[in-house]
Amino acid sequence: MSKQSRLLEEERRKVNFNVEELTNIYDGGVEHTEMKRKVEAAIHNDPECRCKDVGMMTREERFNDGMRRTIHLNKVVFPREGWNAFSKELDYVLRNIGKEFCLGIHTGVFLPCILSFGSDEQIAKWLALGAQLQIIGTYAQTELGHGTFLRGLQTVATYDKASQEFIINCPEISAMKWWPGDMGKSANHALVMAQLVIDGKKYGMHPFIVQIRDLTTHMPLPGITVGDIGNKVGFETTDNGFLHFNQVRIPRENLLCKNSEVKPDGTYVAKTKDKMVYGSMVRLRAIFLEGEVVSALGKACTIAVRYSLVRQQGELEPGKPEVAVMEYMTQQKKLLPYVAMTYATHFACLKLRKMYNIFEQKVKEGDLSGLPELHALSAGMKASVAEQCTDGIEILRKSCGGHGYSNASGIPIIWARAVAGCTYEGENTVMYLQCARYLVKCYNQVQTNRLHGTVAYLNNMSQSTCRVNKANDFQQPGVLVACFQYRAREVIKSVAMKINHLTKNGFPNHEAWNKCSVELVNVVKAHITQYIVATFASVIDELSCSPPVKTVLLQMCALYALENITLYSGDFLKVGYLSPKQCDLALEAELDLLSRLRPNAVGLVDAFDYSDDLLQSCIGAYDGNVYERLFEWAKKSPLNKSEVHEETYKYLKSYLHAGRDILEGETKSKL
Amino acid sequence: MSKQSRLLEEERRKVNFNVEELTNIYDGGVEHTEMKRKVEAAIHNDPECRCKDVGMMTREERFNDGMRRTIHLNKVVFPREGWNAFSKELDYVLRNIGKEFCLGIHTGVFLPCILSFGSDEQIAKWLALGAQLQIIGTYAQTELGHGTFLRGLQTVATYDKASQEFIINCPEISAMKWWPGDMGKSANHALVMAQLVIDGKKYGMHPFIVQIRDLTTHMPLPGITVGDIGNKVGFETTDNGFLHFNQVRIPRENLLCKNSEVKPDGTYVAKTKDKMVYGSMVRLRAIFLEGEVVSALGKACTIAVRYSLVRQQGELEPGKPEVAVMEYMTQQKKLLPYVAMTYATHFACLKLRKMYNIFEQKVKEGDLSGLPELHALSAGMKASVAEQCTDGIEILRKSCGGHGYSNASGIPIIWARAVAGCTYEGENTVMYLQCARYLVKCYNQVQTNRLHGTVAYLNNMSQSTCRVNKANDFQQPGVLVACFQYRAREVIKSVAMKINHLTKNGFPNHEAWNKCSVELVNVVKAHITQYIVATFASVIDELSCSPPVKTVLLQMCALYALENITLYSGDFLKVGYLSPKQCDLALEAELDLLSRLRPNAVGLVDAFDYSDDLLQSCIGAYDGNVYERLFEWAKKSPLNKSEVHEETYKYLKSYLHAGRDILEGETKSKL
Repeated sequence: MSKQSRLLEEERRKVNFNVEELTNIYDGGVEHTEMKRKVEAAIHNDPECRCKDVGMMTREERFNDGMRRTIHLNKVVFPREGWNAFSKELDYVLRNIGKEFCLGIHTGVFLPCILSFGSDEQIAKWLALGAQLQIIGTYAQTELGHGTFLRGLQTVATYDKASQEFIINCPEISAMKWWPGDMGKSANHALVMAQLVIDGKKYGMHPFIVQIRDLTTHMPLPGITVGDIGNKVGFETTDNGFLHFNQVRIPRENLLCKNSEVKPDGTYVAKTKDKMVYGSMVRLRAIFLEGEVVSALGKACTIAVRYSLVRQQGELEPGKPEVAVMEYMTQQKKLLPYVAMTYATHFACLKLRKMYNIFEQKVKEGDLSGLPELHALSAGMKASVAEQCTDGIEILRKSCGGHGYSNASGIPIIWARAVAGCTYEGENTVMYLQCARYLVKCYNQVQTNRLHGTVAYLNNMSQSTCRVNKANDFQQPGVLVACFQYRAREVIKSVAMKINHLTKNGFPNHEAWNKCSVELVNVVKAHITQYIVATFASVIDELSCSPPVKTVLLQMCALYALENITLYSGDFLKVGYLSPKQCDLALEAELDLLSRLRPNAVGLVDAFDYSDDLLQSCIGAYDGNVYERLFEWAKKSPLNKSEVHEETYKYLKSYLHAGRDILEGETKSKL
Repeated sequence: MSKQSRLLEEERRKVNFNVEELTNIYDGGVEHTEMKRKVEAAIHNDPECRCKDVGMMTREERFNDGMRRTIHLNKVVFPREGWNAFSKELDYVLRNIGKEFCLGIHTGVFLPCILSFGSDEQIAKWLALGAQLQIIGTYAQTELGHGTFLRGLQTVATYDKASQEFIINCPEISAMKWWPGDMGKSANHALVMAQLVIDGKKYGMHPFIVQIRDLTTHMPLPGITVGDIGNKVGFETTDNGFLHFNQVRIPRENLLCKNSEVKPDGTYVAKTKDKMVYGSMVRLRAIFLEGEVVSALGKACTIAVRYSLVRQQGELEPGKPEVAVMEYMTQQKKLLPYVAMTYATHFACLKLRKMYNIFEQKVKEGDLSGLPELHALSAGMKASVAEQCTDGIEILRKSCGGHGYSNASGIPIIWARAVAGCTYEGENTVMYLQCARYLVKCYNQVQTNRLHGTVAYLNNMSQSTCRVNKANDFQQPGVLVACFQYRAREVIKSVAMKINHLTKNGFPNHEAWNKCSVELVNVVKAHITQYIVATFASVIDELSCSPPVKTVLLQMCALYALENITLYSGDFLKVGYLSPKQCDLALEAELDLLSRLRPNAVGLVDAFDYSDDLLQSCIGAYDGNVYERLFEWAKKSPLNKSEVHEETYKYLKSYLHAGRDILEGETKSKL
C-alpha cells in the first residue's frame, strides 16, 4: 500500500460521524441509496458501459464512444434490467452512466416537447417512434443570431393553402438553427420553432416537426443543410448542430397542434394556452441544476479534498516533516466552503423539486397561482447556483496545483461541462433579471398585500441590527438566516426605491430598469443565498438523525452562510445590519469552523458517494493512490504511442545529428 | 458587407480619440509600434507561419503543427529576417507568432539557466549547441510529488569518487521529474535539479546536465524512462513530460559549477551564492505576466467588445427594434472594467520591468539592496494579476453567451493557456504569502524606520476618512489612490496586529502565521491593487498626449479603481475610510463612467492592436462579420468530414430503417 493510501486510511479513522447515514440523508432516504447502488452495480459490472480514459481522447473519439455506450444502454442494458424512460430508476441511471453519452436532447427535450405541444394523435405517432429510437429528434429553437430572446427568432413557416403545406425557410444566414444538441450528425427529425405566417400575417412562434435526414441513407433531405458546429469547451459527446432550411415543405399535420391549429383553408385556431410549459421548465431546471451542476461541484470537492489530504508539501513548522496541504488554512478556506456549498445547494434543489411536485398537484385542481413565484425562484436559482458552483469547481481545480491543470485530475473535464450551465437553459444574466422583476413587484406590493411563501420574509421591513457579540453565536442557524433575510430585504428595498425615484424623475420604465440592472443582479444573489441558507437550516431542523451527523450538517450550513458573509461583507455593512467588529467575528467564526471540520473532511466528501468510475480522476480516487495512478495514466498519452514520436524526430533529426557530430568530435579530441 | 460589419463601422465612427496614438502609448512609443508592425508583416506574409484552425485540432495535431512552425521559424524566418535569440525584435516575434509553438522551455528556460548556473567553459560548450538546436534541453525541477516546495525534491545525485561520476537516481515513484516542458518527446538533454550527496552527506539542490536521449536515434538512454504526461487544460503544443532516473551515471563535469564545484576527490567547494538568480525571476515574471496573461485578457476583451457591439438581442424599449447587447448596463459592467484592467495591469507590468532594469544597473555597481522589495512586488503581482486577469477572461467568455462556449470564439483557447499562469512560476497562494511576509516585515519596521519605494505609503499611519460627497469626485486619480493606500495600510496593520497578538499569547510564529494566512492573502491583493492604481495614475500624469487620449486613459484608471471599490466595498467600509453613502456614490460614478466610455469601446480594444491572425476568433475579427465566419468555421468540424458520419450511422442504421418501414406503412395505409 502506498504512503498516500495509508494517509487516507488514517484520515478515515478520524471521521467522527457515520458516513453511510449522511449518504442516506443526502440521497433522500435509505431506500434511494439502495436503488442508486443497485443501478450502479448493474452499470459498473457491464464492461461495455464503462468509460474509457476520456481525458486522453479526441473530441471525435469521445463522440463515437458516447454513441456506442448510448446504443448499448438502450439495446442491452435497459431490456436486461427492465428499465425504461419512465422507470423510477432513471435518475440513478443518468447519475451512474456519467456524462459520456449521446442523444440526451432526443430523450430529454424532443420527446417531452412532443408531449407538451402535440395533440393526442400526434403524440401517439411521434412519441412511439421516438421512444424506440426509430426516429431521432432534436429541439431546434436557438438560431445563429438569436439565443435567449425567443421573439427575435427568424426562421419562418409560411402556410401554402394550395398544397396544404408549410414552407420552412431561413431568410438570412443568421436565421439558421444553431446549437441544438443531437442535431449535427444524429437527428433525422427536428422539432422546429418557427414564425408562423398565413396570408402574410405573423402568428408568432410555433412548433413544427420537420424530417431533416433520409431514414434509409441518413443523408440530408433536399433543401436541408445540416452539420456539427465544431469543438467546444465541453460536451464532446453532443453533436450541437447547424440546420438551414431552403424552402422546405412539410405537411400541414406537422404543426404540433395542442395549443393552436391551422385549418386546411388557412384559418388559424388558437386553443387555450398551456401554462404548464413554464411549469415544466421549473422541473427541468431543478433536475439539471442537481444533475449537471451541483453534482459536478460534489465530484470536484471529492477529488480536491482527498488529494489535499495525501499531498504533502512544505513545512508548517520549520525543520519538521512536510505536511498535507490540507493543514494550511488557505487550503481549508479554498476547499471546505465548497463542500458546504454542495450540501447547501443540493438540499435547495431537492426543495425546489418538492415545491414543483406540490404545484403540479395544485394544477390538477385547477390552481395555477403558484407559477410566478416558482418560475422566479427557479430562474434565480438557475443563475445563482450555476454561477457559484462552477466558479467553485475552478477554484477547487486550482487548489490542486499543477496536477489540477492536467486532465488526469478529472476536474478540467467536470468543469468544462458544468460551466455550460451558466449559458444554456436561459443565459444567467437574463435569468437573474427575470427573478429580479418578480422580487421588485413583490416589494412594491408589500405595503398593501401580505406576501407568502419564498418572499414572506419581505413582510417585515422594520430596521434592526444584529445583536451578536461572540464569534460562536455566528454558528447558529437562526442568527445566520436573520442576517441573510435582512440583507436581502434591504438591497431589494434600496433598488426598488431607486427605480421609483428614476421613474418619478421622468425616466421611462425600461430605462430606469436598465440603469438599475447591475444592482438588480445583486438583489437576486442576495435573495437566493437567503433562500438556500433558510432552506438548509429548515431541512436540518426537520431531520431525525444521530447527533454527530446533525452537528456536521449544522456546521455545513453555518460555513456556507459565513463564507457568503465574508464575500459580501460590503452589503451587510452598507445596510447597517453588521458592524465592522461583527464582520471580524463572522470571519473568526468561519476560520474556527474550518479547523473543526478539517478532521471530518474526508467523511464529508465520501458521503457524496461518487465511485471512482464517475470521478475519472487519478488524484481523487477512493484509495488515495495518487502517484502510481498518475504515472499509469500518463503512459497512455497519445504522444507516447511510440518511444520516439515520429513527427518530432522528423523535424529535429538533422539538428540532433549535427549536435552528435560536434559532441563526438569533442570527445575524440580529448582522447 | 454584412449588417454586423456595418454596425462595427458605425461604432468606429463614434470613437472620439486617435486610436493609433493610444496604440503608440500602449506599445511604449511609436518606434515600438513600428517594429511590432514590421515583425508582424514578416510573419503574417509567410504562409508557413500562419496558425491553422486550432479550435478544431486534436492535441497531437496541434503539437505536430507547433513543431513544424517552430522549426520553420528557426530554419527559415530567423535567418531571412536577420533575427536571433538576442535581437530586440524578439519580444515582437513572440507576440506575433501566437501561442502555437514548441521548444519554449528550451529557449526560454534551459538556455538562460545554463547562463545562470554554468562556468564560462560550460556556457561555451552547452549554450552554443543549444542556441543552434543541436541539443534540445529541458529544465527538470518539479517532481511528481513536489512542485513549489523546492527543498522537498527527492531526486538524488550521489558522487562516485572511483569513477568521478554522479549517479542520478529517483528513490521512489514520487521523485520522478514531472511537468517540465519540452521534456516528454523533444528534449535530449535535461538540466536536472537534484539533491547532491557526497560521502553520505547532503548538500542541497544542485543543477546537473544529463543526456536523456540518444542523438542519433532519439531513443531514451539506458536507465531513463521518459514520456509525455498527457492532455491538459491548455498548452497543447508543449510536451510536458515525466522523467525517471534509474542509477544514471554522468561525468563530474556535468555539475553546472558557477556557484559550487565538486573536486575529483569529492571535496565540495561553495562559491559566492549568486543572488541574481532571484533577480532574473523578477524579470521572467514581468515578461510572462505581460506576454501570457495581460495580453490574453486584452485579446478576450477585443473579442467580447466587438461581438457585443454587433450582436443584437432583445428589446431595450418594448416594441422597438432589437439592440446591440452592449446597450445593456449589465453587459457594459461585464466588459469595460476588464478593458480597464488590461490597461492598468499592462502599465504595471511595464513599470515592473523598468524597476528591474534600474535594479540590474545598481547590481552592476554592487548594490543588491533592492532585491527583497522587487522580489516581493513581483511575487504579489504574479499572483494578483494572474488571478484577476484569468477570472476576467472567463467572465468575458460567458458574456458572449452560447458562442462564447464554442472554440470558434477563440476565448476558450486563450483562457485555457493563460489560466496556467495561476499555477506555474510559483503557485499563486504561495506567491501571495511570500509578498505578505515582506509587507508584514515592513509594517513592523514603520515605527522605527522610514520606508521607501513601493511601500512608502505605509509611513503615514494616521486615521482619516474620505471627504468625497459627489459621485464625480470619485473619478479623480488622487482621490482613488488615497482610497487604495488607506485600505491597504489598514488591512496590513490589522493582520500584523493580529499576528503580534497571537504570538504574545503563546502561539509559535508559524502557527500565528498560518492562522492569519487567509487575511494575509487579502492584504497582498489590497497592496497590489493599490500599486496598480497608483502606477497607472502616475503613468498618465507623466504622459504628453492629446487631451482626448488623456481623458480616456484617466477614465480607464478610474474605472479599474472603482470596480475594485465595488468588489471590495467590505474592506473600505470596515476600515472606516468610506461611508455606506460614499460606496453608493462610487458605484454611481462607475455606472456613469460605463455610459460615457461605451461610445469609445471599440476604439479602446482596437488600440490593443491584435490582428485577426492572433485572435483566431470568428466573433471578434476586425470586420465584425460574425455569422458568416461562424458558418465557414463550423463546416470544418471533424464530424463534418462526410455528410453521413459513419460511426453514427453504424449504430443508428437498424433503428432508422425500422422507423422508415413504420412511417412508409402508415403512408401506404392512408392511400
